[in-house]
Amino acid sequence: MPRYRLTLEWDGRPYMGWQRQEHGPSVQQALEEAAARITEHDVTAIAAGRTDAGVHARAMPVHFDSEKALTPFRMMEALNAQLRPHPIAVIDCREANAEWHARFSCTGRIYDYLIINRRPPLTLEAGMAWRVTHDLDAEAMHEAAQRLVGQHDFTTFRSAHCQSASPVKTLDRLDVARTTDRIMIRAEARSFLHHQVRSMVGCLMMVGRGQWSADDLSSALVAADRQALGQNAPPDGLYFVGARYE
Amino acid sequence: MPRYRLTLEWDGRPYMGWQRQEHGPSVQQALEEAAARITEHDVTAIAAGRTDAGVHARAMPVHFDSEKALTPFRMMEALNAQLRPHPIAVIDCREANAEWHARFSCTGRIYDYLIINRRPPLTLEAGMAWRVTHDLDAEAMHEAAQRLVGQHDFTTFRSAHCQSASPVKTLDRLDVARTTDRIMIRAEARSFLHHQVRSMVGCLMMVGRGQWSADDLSSALVAADRQALGQNAPPDGLYFVGARYE
Repeated sequence: MPRYRLTLEWDGRPYMGWQRQEHGPSVQQALEEAAARITEHDVTAIAAGRTDAGVHARAMPVHFDSEKALTPFRMMEALNAQLRPHPIAVIDCREANAEWHARFSCTGRIYDYLIINRRPPLTLEAGMAWRVTHDLDAEAMHEAAQRLVGQHDFTTFRSAHCQSASPVKTLDRLDVARTTDRIMIRAEARSFLHHQVRSMVGCLMMVGRGQWSADDLSSALVAADRQALGQNAPPDGLYFVGARYE
Repeated sequence: MPRYRLTLEWDGRPYMGWQRQEHGPSVQQALEEAAARITEHDVTAIAAGRTDAGVHARAMPVHFDSEKALTPFRMMEALNAQLRPHPIAVIDCREANAEWHARFSCTGRIYDYLIINRRPPLTLEAGMAWRVTHDLDAEAMHEAAQRLVGQHDFTTFRSAHCQSASPVKTLDRLDVARTTDRIMIRAEARSFLHHQVRSMVGCLMMVGRGQWSADDLSSALVAADRQALGQNAPPDGLYFVGARYE
């Protein structure tokens, strides 16, 4: 019974997120249904991370077990054929050993967040970026972001629905860089709390427009209180871009 | 009566192209209707270039005359408000003198064409790039492309519907560069024939996959015959990205 290790890319706009939901379409459901048509049995797919409604993936590791043994190439081809017309693609497929687990074996998760800093509405990037109309100082955002790097109680940046056992996480990297009107934020950690990236980005935006200082960001972190949160960024600009395994 | 010089960005997917058509929505119609609601008179908008159905624009110069005088900033804001929910945005607006003409004053037009060279279907870039599944040699494409640079009779690369007086054009630049699985082609000329960029890209793709040599490309050019065309690339990957004015 082979275990397949997939890398998935998807456009998050039509989905409630990765995880199966009663009330709407999910990437997990689309993938499991596609895989079940190939394997001819029920399939449970596990992803490295859960993503919210509207969040995109460039490279999300996923695994599932199949009683039907196909070469990884043929499995990828079959899944991509069955996934049509969903905007979900298997961009890599290989066999993994039975101990490899997309979620529990994962030792690092990387997200990108794209802000487009301009006044006109988005067209080509509609749903794919957060348009912020106030002028943002990306250098100030990057400097302030370093206050969040390291091990902290991230309660301020955690949604009420977070299922994590502890609010203490180690943020390995939070970089902010501007190219013309695009501001890209890269966040890397072993794991994140629910809404953590979007909450950090929302507060960094407040720093960028001058509403908050880096000290205000530190105070919000130290408060360890959801009420201290400045703002949550929308899902549109968030991309799961990679995961690390030992 | 001020003349407004706009820069437009649009997602070409829903449109028959820039130009007004009897049988479907166009960017020109959307803009003229938005402008007419502001100026309270009929408006004719002129663009630097016509684009086909499904072709995108990052920065298309356009002008129109208005009997109502608003500051350029207020005109931009009003147009963007009236354009909703069209995926068309005015990203710059200024006043121009009455001699300035988006089309006739234009001395250079620049297009980008994006190929994504991979087997899996596109998701985030669906409709925004040409997926080519055969391995492409971008260096060979770039080398061959130089055969097309300069003044030539581009009849081979011209659609049957082309309205240009002459098939002789001067191609100033045709660069091909790969970054991971993305191949970006930039074409620059004073003006192009109808379908010229897509026809050149289609033939370069044949060079990239090894079906054609650079000599085959030269032969097709010299033939000056539409029958010698290798292949036409789809509109999805084509972007009007800029124009030059003296």
